[in-house]
Amino acid sequence: MDLVQKNLLEQVAGLHEIPEGAYNIRANGNKLGRNTTANIDIVTKTDKDGIDIIIKPGTVNESVHIPVLLSQSGMQECVYNDFYIGEGADVTIVAGCGIHNCGVDTSKHDGVHTFYLEKNAKVRYVERHYGEGDGNGENIMNPETVVHLKEGAHMDMETTQIKGIDSTNRVTRGDLADGAMLEIHEKIMTHGKQFARTDFAVDLNGDNSSCNLISRSVAKGESRQEFFSIMNGNAACAGHSECDAIIMDQGCVTASPQLTANCIDANLIHEAAIGKIAGEQLIKLMTLGLTEKEAEEQIVNGFLK
Amino acid sequence: MDLVQKNLLEQVAGLHEIPEGAYNIRANGNKLGRNTTANIDIVTKTDKDGIDIIIKPGTVNESVHIPVLLSQSGMQECVYNDFYIGEGADVTIVAGCGIHNCGVDTSKHDGVHTFYLEKNAKVRYVERHYGEGDGNGENIMNPETVVHLKEGAHMDMETTQIKGIDSTNRVTRGDLADGAMLEIHEKIMTHGKQFARTDFAVDLNGDNSSCNLISRSVAKGESRQEFFSIMNGNAACAGHSECDAIIMDQGCVTASPQLTANCIDANLIHEAAIGKIAGEQLIKLMTLGLTEKEAEEQIVNGFLK
Repeated sequence: MDLVQKNLLEQVAGLHEIPEGAYNIRANGNKLGRNTTANIDIVTKTDKDGIDIIIKPGTVNESVHIPVLLSQSGMQECVYNDFYIGEGADVTIVAGCGIHNCGVDTSKHDGVHTFYLEKNAKVRYVERHYGEGDGNGENIMNPETVVHLKEGAHMDMETTQIKGIDSTNRVTRGDLADGAMLEIHEKIMTHGKQFARTDFAVDLNGDNSSCNLISRSVAKGESRQEFFSIMNGNAACAGHSECDAIIMDQGCVTASPQLTANCIDANLIHEAAIGKIAGEQLIKLMTLGLTEKEAEEQIVNGFLK
Repeated sequence: MDLVQKNLLEQVAGLHEIPEGAYNIRANGNKLGRNTTANIDIVTKTDKDGIDIIIKPGTVNESVHIPVLLSQSGMQECVYNDFYIGEGADVTIVAGCGIHNCGVDTSKHDGVHTFYLEKNAKVRYVERHYGEGDGNGENIMNPETVVHLKEGAHMDMETTQIKGIDSTNRVTRGDLADGAMLEIHEKIMTHGKQFARTDFAVDLNGDNSSCNLISRSVAKGESRQEFFSIMNGNAACAGHSECDAIIMDQGCVTASPQLTANCIDANLIHEAAIGKIAGEQLIKLMTLGLTEKEAEEQIVNGFLK
């Protein structure tokens, strides 16, 4: 791994070196390293680009890291990763993609991640997207996440895109059986002329299933963001979605959440707010000695924390 | 006017007899009566079915009633009414349509109402839709309301559809200049196999313009309701929308509100909640001696009040 790749790895996976436990590091389309454990197997797909991550029933306190690094300008790929999480397992999965593009060509990573959680399985899934580069080449990432939750399964998703992605279309699909729970926290910040679209659709099919979707975003510069969500309550379920956005400079944000109750025992709630940073908040911090820019930064960091 | 028509008039306009002030009563496609005043003129359109209502600048404390009655089964019509409200006028306009259908044919009233409010004009607009009939004929109403608000104009819309409309597609469009204000209160109750769709789109184009949209609906039986709204903040404006729905029996409700901030000084908020009547509320009223059905009725009436 060179220095550029090491830095990307730190940005997307919080890792300074090769991680413990199971991992698969993909760099510029090649396998840079892989480790499996007694409970976690990683198998290269034979029909298309990507891997299968197979986690044995009952596996607990283990983690899987599958970072993807692109440091060659103009590198474009589409990868399919499938996750099979056995009954009663409780694991952490850290994915993410970092692009370093110092050329003039477009670098692009499309990843389709499909999760199959068996009964009572629990997954904490962390995904970070990061781009950098002093060239003119665009960085594009289109992550698609599909989540199938069986009875009593829990999935906690944290996705973050803070910097350097010129264009992204983030698609998430979920279906939940009885007692399943899906918790999604999304954070997005865009700047310059960037564009980000997020598109959620969740079917609450099982009794006592629940979904909590929290999206927080900041649009700076001339960037544009679109938020779409669909939550279908098809059983005695609880759904909550919340999308809050701060706009700065000439940023534009659209929020379009949709709730549908197809069952009388479905309970669905949505909230959205779009606006700039309140003047009083800025003034309060500025009286404490911060410049306007520092005060803004502090508020934005707190909002996305 | 026969008894059936008198009853419809009471349901849609709260009138027991011919109203005071300006009015135009339309029954089964014909003019049943019209009155104009020194400040309010009503003129039959020559290019299509409908009327122009012209209100002089500065007109205050006057009202216009324009009820539409359909008592012949199978009657179908599309009417265009345009309202020109002079600068500084402050008037109440009561519209509405009542259908009595005792036959097997579909009765249908489509009304397109376009409002032009000059500077600082104020309108309170009340619209009620009501259907009845012991036959098998369907009652269909598709009201379209288009509102153009110049600087400082205020419009307060109250629309109610409580009973007897089998299918409705309610379209509202609005554009607001500096300091204009649009307040919309919508109440809908559907039962049986009824279908109701509401579709709002409001452009907040002027600085200090504001829109407040409150929709409350109850879906009983096997009825279906769809709520769509679009609010575009194109200036230093404030937009708030709220759609709350109670579902009962096998009722289905979809809520799909969209907010877009195209200006950093736009402040947009949305809230939505869909669910059934809370069990505790029912129990509280039942301990006071109400039956479950009476308790439900009381809660629904309070919700739609």
